Amino acid sequence: MKFGMVGVNGKMGKEIVDYFTSMGDELVLRVDTDLEDISGTPDVIIDFSNRSALEKTVELCTKFSCPLVIGTTALTEDDFTLLRKLSESVPVVQSYNFSEGINILKAILGKFGQYFDNWDCAIVETHHNKKKDAPSGTAIMLKNALGKELPISSLRIGGVFGEHTVVFANDGEVVEITHKALSRRAFSIGARKAALFSLTKKNGFYSFSDVISESLRG
Amino acid sequence: MKFGMVGVNGKMGKEIVDYFTSMGDELVLRVDTDLEDISGTPDVIIDFSNRSALEKTVELCTKFSCPLVIGTTALTEDDFTLLRKLSESVPVVQSYNFSEGINILKAILGKFGQYFDNWDCAIVETHHNKKKDAPSGTAIMLKNALGKELPISSLRIGGVFGEHTVVFANDGEVVEITHKALSRRAFSIGARKAALFSLTKKNGFYSFSDVISESLRG
Amino acid sequence: MKFGMVGVNGKMGKEIVDYFTSMGDELVLRVDTDLEDISGTPDVIIDFSNRSALEKTVELCTKFSCPLVIGTTALTEDDFTLLRKLSESVPVVQSYNFSEGINILKAILGKFGQYFDNWDCAIVETHHNKKKDAPSGTAIMLKNALGKELPISSLRIGGVFGEHTVVFANDGEVVEITHKALSRRAFSIGARKAALFSLTKKNGFYSFSDVISESLRG
Amino acid sequence: MKFGMVGVNGKMGKEIVDYFTSMGDELVLRVDTDLEDISGTPDVIIDFSNRSALEKTVELCTKFSCPLVIGTTALTEDDFTLLRKLSESVPVVQSYNFSEGINILKAILGKFGQYFDNWDCAIVETHHNKKKDAPSGTAIMLKNALGKELPISSLRIGGVFGEHTVVFANDGEVVEITHKALSRRAFSIGARKAALFSLTKKNGFYSFSDVISESLRG
Repeated sequence: MKFGMVGVNGKMGKEIVDYFTSMGDELVLRVDTDLEDISGTPDVIIDFSNRSALEKTVELCTKFSCPLVIGTTALTEDDFTLLRKLSESVPVVQSYNFSEGINILKAILGKFGQYFDNWDCAIVETHHNKKKDAPSGTAIMLKNALGKELPISSLRIGGVFGEHTVVFANDGEVVEITHKALSRRAFSIGARKAALFSLTKKNGFYSFSDVISESLRG
Repeated sequence: MKFGMVGVNGKMGKEIVDYFTSMGDELVLRVDTDLEDISGTPDVIIDFSNRSALEKTVELCTKFSCPLVIGTTALTEDDFTLLRKLSESVPVVQSYNFSEGINILKAILGKFGQYFDNWDCAIVETHHNKKKDAPSGTAIMLKNALGKELPISSLRIGGVFGEHTVVFANDGEVVEITHKALSRRAFSIGARKAALFSLTKKNGFYSFSDVISESLRG
Repeated sequence: MKFGMVGVNGKMGKEIVDYFTSMGDELVLRVDTDLEDISGTPDVIIDFSNRSALEKTVELCTKFSCPLVIGTTALTEDDFTLLRKLSESVPVVQSYNFSEGINILKAILGKFGQYFDNWDCAIVETHHNKKKDAPSGTAIMLKNALGKELPISSLRIGGVFGEHTVVFANDGEVVEITHKALSRRAFSIGARKAALFSLTKKNGFYSFSDVISESLRG
Repeated sequence: MKFGMVGVNGKMGKEIVDYFTSMGDELVLRVDTDLEDISGTPDVIIDFSNRSALEKTVELCTKFSCPLVIGTTALTEDDFTLLRKLSESVPVVQSYNFSEGINILKAILGKFGQYFDNWDCAIVETHHNKKKDAPSGTAIMLKNALGKELPISSLRIGGVFGEHTVVFANDGEVVEITHKALSRRAFSIGARKAALFSLTKKNGFYSFSDVISESLRG
């Protein structure tokens, strides 16, 4: 597919371009601060930059009448209003976390968490020592998927990209479910899956969970 | 509850008596080779011995008109016929593995395995060095729950009671689901859950999966 | 060897008798509260009870002029004075932790900890939910072996017997050193090693580290 | 420091330039196929390319009379002869693996492996599915450091950069020592340590073990 990348010089932008092109896709639109380079008509536009770029992104999707996959974080209510309006004419896939694994984990905990009702439960998460917040947003999301309070241990060491383990234990056995992100590749794979998904839709506002569910029925 | 134990001198028999009585249950019927000691009317009979005891077990369940929880392995077709006949008058819960965790794992893999269709997958299982067979029956069961071929690595070291890990990985992330049995307690907890389940039934032939599913609806 | 067991009815006493006899040793002296049963002359006496039994234990070692292996915890200065006096006539092996693995770990950290000076470091320890104190005494001992402050995460879940992981990480790599006690067997193996060691000595006060070091030179 | 990079366009070359410059070093000499760009006098030259570049590398070190840190693999006897000759006039640090962690692991196993003589032992190593050989060269190196035969399980899944676990187990306990390389950063950190080491030497042929040992005494 031909794709456009907003935030093309950011770390995640570079990674997405790297992965998409390695899969045979063609980069035809590059946008970043002080940069707008259009060399073809995109089938889809990807935006992993920040909300200051949103207006430009929406303008481009409208111009090319193409879907948007957006992983920008910290969106406001106004931003969502803008995106929902865009989704009336083209497909928009929005998520704060495009990792397939984390989304599957969330689904497993939501479905099977109740089986562990009489077990003890804890979460251990490990991230690099540059990460300021603890516990991680993902750990909180997993706790919420389980729907109960539980202790979360946070380790901040070295360059660990991101690991989350949910441990269940009773007197006789232990079940551990672990997710490890190896690199940003975890998110570019999910972003491409979302892009391919968006190509099959006319319009609408979608989450990454919709993408994963669809991939099963497809 | 008042319970009877067939195979009361075996390792698993001792463990079950230990656990059940620690939970307030009363042992009123003890059976083993050359032993039959009845001091009360059992609400349920547990049999974790071997198939040579089966006839006696069925006779006792019939006599007391009480449910049977049976974890005896290597049952023959004839044995199953006998058990099914018994189940017409009392509840019978039969399983080769009363570990809750392993049964939940099996259910997770059956339900979510397809989400990992494009991921690589492998199983690593570790058991004590006395275990002769490899891969373990449980590893094969987990593989079957996934419904596809995959490499299984078997470690036989020291006194490790039993660990199974299913690993999924793609280019960007890894998901690991691990079960560790800490001791025979893993199975006695499940056996007691099955016993409590059987007390709520009139008759019928049940698996341990039925017990787990019921515990959710209950 | 012929051995005596003080605290023969305690959990650790039972385990030690179980393991020693499985290795061909003969139990010839049994002591516990209100129990003293001597059926032979012990080559060594093992005491894993509590300090109230110490006087009796010392009396018996003196009577039979045999070594003592003592794993009793919470000894006072007076108790140590008593033991050191005994060690003038017979060998005494004293330790608060007879796990070989933990003692090897301690030695590894003492020797190689400095190699990780520029790495981040943390300890994660997991024990059963009956354990009251956190962090565990062993975790503190491992921290002291490293000789620096570091965060310790403590999980108290289910029936986990005891696990300790020391994690080192820099920007590019992670080294984890983990010890798992599977059961009390961890300590009875060490106690027997100490007993065999004591048989080769005339007298003296020894630690479990001495036993491990000796086993290498022998 | 000012450094030169041979193989500057290779994956490892880019990573080393990225890391060294992030630490304040200045790249003053860039060499690759059809590329030779010298903008200053290097304090040290790093070569992580392939043996076809070796002659040029040696020529440059001689010209600038500066140390060489070389991580090129598959060197021949002739190549080593060339390097040893160079090391008569400048320091040369040569290794096939510049990971600090792996080298520390090797040292731990060499020193403490004998403590585990009566334990079972196995190695599990996991790498990405592009890796052709199994077991990994590093796994074999760790086995050799232990000096005995043992089973090695090799997993080839997804994009896992490289993990090695040595497991020891007896009837009562388990000790696991694990190394995980998170990315190429594992090797650039080691290469820079070697570069700084080389600046303190007049001449001589050194291994990465020499670098690590020195860093302790320093």
